[in-house]
Amino acid sequence: MQKDALLAEVNSALEAVRKNNPLAPSITNTVTINLVANIQLACGGSAAMVYLADEGEMMAKISKSMYINMGTQFTCYPETLPRTAKACAENGNAWVLDPVGIGIGAQRENILKQFKEFKPKIIRANASEVIALASLWNLTEQKENSVRGVDSTDEVLSAKDAAVALAKYTGGAVAVSGKADLVTDGTTSVLCHGGSAFLPMITGAGCSLGGVCAVYGNVTSPFIAALTATLLYNEASVKAEKISKGPGTFQSNFIDQLYLVSSAGIRDAEIETLN
Amino acid sequence: MQKDALLAEVNSALEAVRKNNPLAPSITNTVTINLVANIQLACGGSAAMVYLADEGEMMAKISKSMYINMGTQFTCYPETLPRTAKACAENGNAWVLDPVGIGIGAQRENILKQFKEFKPKIIRANASEVIALASLWNLTEQKENSVRGVDSTDEVLSAKDAAVALAKYTGGAVAVSGKADLVTDGTTSVLCHGGSAFLPMITGAGCSLGGVCAVYGNVTSPFIAALTATLLYNEASVKAEKISKGPGTFQSNFIDQLYLVSSAGIRDAEIETLN
Amino acid sequence: MQKDALLAEVNSALEAVRKNNPLAPSITNTVTINLVANIQLACGGSAAMVYLADEGEMMAKISKSMYINMGTQFTCYPETLPRTAKACAENGNAWVLDPVGIGIGAQRENILKQFKEFKPKIIRANASEVIALASLWNLTEQKENSVRGVDSTDEVLSAKDAAVALAKYTGGAVAVSGKADLVTDGTTSVLCHGGSAFLPMITGAGCSLGGVCAVYGNVTSPFIAALTATLLYNEASVKAEKISKGPGTFQSNFIDQLYLVSSAGIRDAEIETLN
Repeated sequence: MQKDALLAEVNSALEAVRKNNPLAPSITNTVTINLVANIQLACGGSAAMVYLADEGEMMAKISKSMYINMGTQFTCYPETLPRTAKACAENGNAWVLDPVGIGIGAQRENILKQFKEFKPKIIRANASEVIALASLWNLTEQKENSVRGVDSTDEVLSAKDAAVALAKYTGGAVAVSGKADLVTDGTTSVLCHGGSAFLPMITGAGCSLGGVCAVYGNVTSPFIAALTATLLYNEASVKAEKISKGPGTFQSNFIDQLYLVSSAGIRDAEIETLN
Repeated sequence: MQKDALLAEVNSALEAVRKNNPLAPSITNTVTINLVANIQLACGGSAAMVYLADEGEMMAKISKSMYINMGTQFTCYPETLPRTAKACAENGNAWVLDPVGIGIGAQRENILKQFKEFKPKIIRANASEVIALASLWNLTEQKENSVRGVDSTDEVLSAKDAAVALAKYTGGAVAVSGKADLVTDGTTSVLCHGGSAFLPMITGAGCSLGGVCAVYGNVTSPFIAALTATLLYNEASVKAEKISKGPGTFQSNFIDQLYLVSSAGIRDAEIETLN
Repeated sequence: MQKDALLAEVNSALEAVRKNNPLAPSITNTVTINLVANIQLACGGSAAMVYLADEGEMMAKISKSMYINMGTQFTCYPETLPRTAKACAENGNAWVLDPVGIGIGAQRENILKQFKEFKPKIIRANASEVIALASLWNLTEQKENSVRGVDSTDEVLSAKDAAVALAKYTGGAVAVSGKADLVTDGTTSVLCHGGSAFLPMITGAGCSLGGVCAVYGNVTSPFIAALTATLLYNEASVKAEKISKGPGTFQSNFIDQLYLVSSAGIRDAEIETLN
């Protein structure tokens, strides 16, 4: 697909969310849960957060796209998370997974293994996490990121094979976040430039991007939803950085810009299609 | 009571909190717990948040007005919440209930049913939640909001019978939040205008209003406490909107204005007494 | 040690963190967990928050300095917290304790008693909490703060004996926060002036200071780490207050200034060595 055609779909998704105020419920970590909700609202979505199993199942049924983030595991999650993911799969919910913290603790790993069966429609993570998840699900033999810390764009590209394998397996999309961002549906892979050095300095930049993917997952395909969220973050963060002195004012300005850019449409996307 | 007499009581409550820094402990959801605490502090109150049953009971005993918000249910809440509400009732604590999420999950409904016996002194909710709670407690036959989404003032007014029934049953007050806000003690009902379109765009606008009701519940009657919190939110949000570009900077400016208006007193209340 | 020598060590610590981006994991309360993480990032550290026992043990092993804050106790903490503190002690992790809420509930007191054996290397608390912890561990006979509320500097000084006793027992440092801040390693005691009246108006000012102590605990001694965090807070909050209208904008500006001051170095420390 050409850049213009992709952007037209992205801007349609922005508009459809503004019009319909779709609900994107979350089970997400306590560190960034407030930011996830506030950013979902700023983009025109609606938020609802739960922890208990029957509540997760209900959210999976009444929404079209919900969000599961693996941060700050609670003791009830071995029951809540698989039951919620199963309900998503059974109800055609285009659910979003952030496998944050993969590799920390037995509970998280056990739940992530079970998730393979329930095929999340969008996976949003950094390069190392994408590689680790594809390995955990036996989709690739690559065990870890070979270029960690050298250059962030190389780092993102080193996860391309894992991302493509995951997207082909789930039939959905994968968004790899980094200095540049890779979005793929297993066939088309797009690299998005932009963003701000302040973005990794606010906790939850990644978590909230997953929540925004779920907002757009209500109104378009997983691939366009992940691309819309990513391009929106890039443009809003560039604009916010220009008027911020540090990460504190940046966070407030970033939320403002998400609200303004998602209302006005994306104009300056820097994207390139990869072979 | 006349408008001027009401405003005199409201401004006395603002001043009493500034002077005494009263403690309003909370058991509240993880999404907006930080905002609840920050706003309680901005108004001159003191905050303390707990989850365990014996801690909730202790808070009920050492404070005059505490806050229970039903969001993000934890597995310990079937023990914590009824024991805390019972301790409030037994110790004359003017406790505040936000029944957020009523209708989601078995645990929440079961706990809300038990709360009927312990009569919260202030109930703070939106129109649909007020109607649902009055129905759950068998105080009215109205099952749901008949004018949802048409016009927010009509929506609030559609919950007036339920709000009056709840206030008469508890002997306290009910605050129905919306585009306009209804505050009633079962006899006197007041409609408050003002507010900002950015307010529903920050998560926890409603949750934190409940927390602020508990702050003022320390120094005045439930009706005046609910009215004070509501008028303070309206005036502070009008002022904050004027200097904000979006919901991100609005949140910071709103907290500033809550601090400034609660210190300077309410000047521009738009209220009308209903028949 | 002379003031200049202390400041040289403090500025070396600031620089070492900027260079190495050390991980300071936390088990901390849900009220202020987001602020703790954001402020750790603003200072150049890296954050990771967990609740489960095996995750806490892993964090103790893979980091040099982690943070345990006793706020918002969960039901899993009787297992998680002692196992994590034990893993810290066994692995030479310079862990930081904030005993917030000491005196509230049986679980918290029981866990705090067990912590005596595992000797936290930095204790960060207000005067009353320091006195209560030294009493709980039978290190002093003073039961409570004799000058509470009279003058904050006197209040801090009233905890000096308890702070010195704790530091001598643990072999680490204690930071007593108040209008002035006392930092001691049991031998050298320093009183730090500065700060802002807005600081106690944002929830988590103290909690996040503990998290920042853990960031600097990665690169220097407990005493210098606690002093660095304290001086950084004082200078950043003075600068933030000058450009803020209330506690809302102050919080954003304070995070900006922590980022700017920790990058530029501390210039205006007001400290005096006590006898």
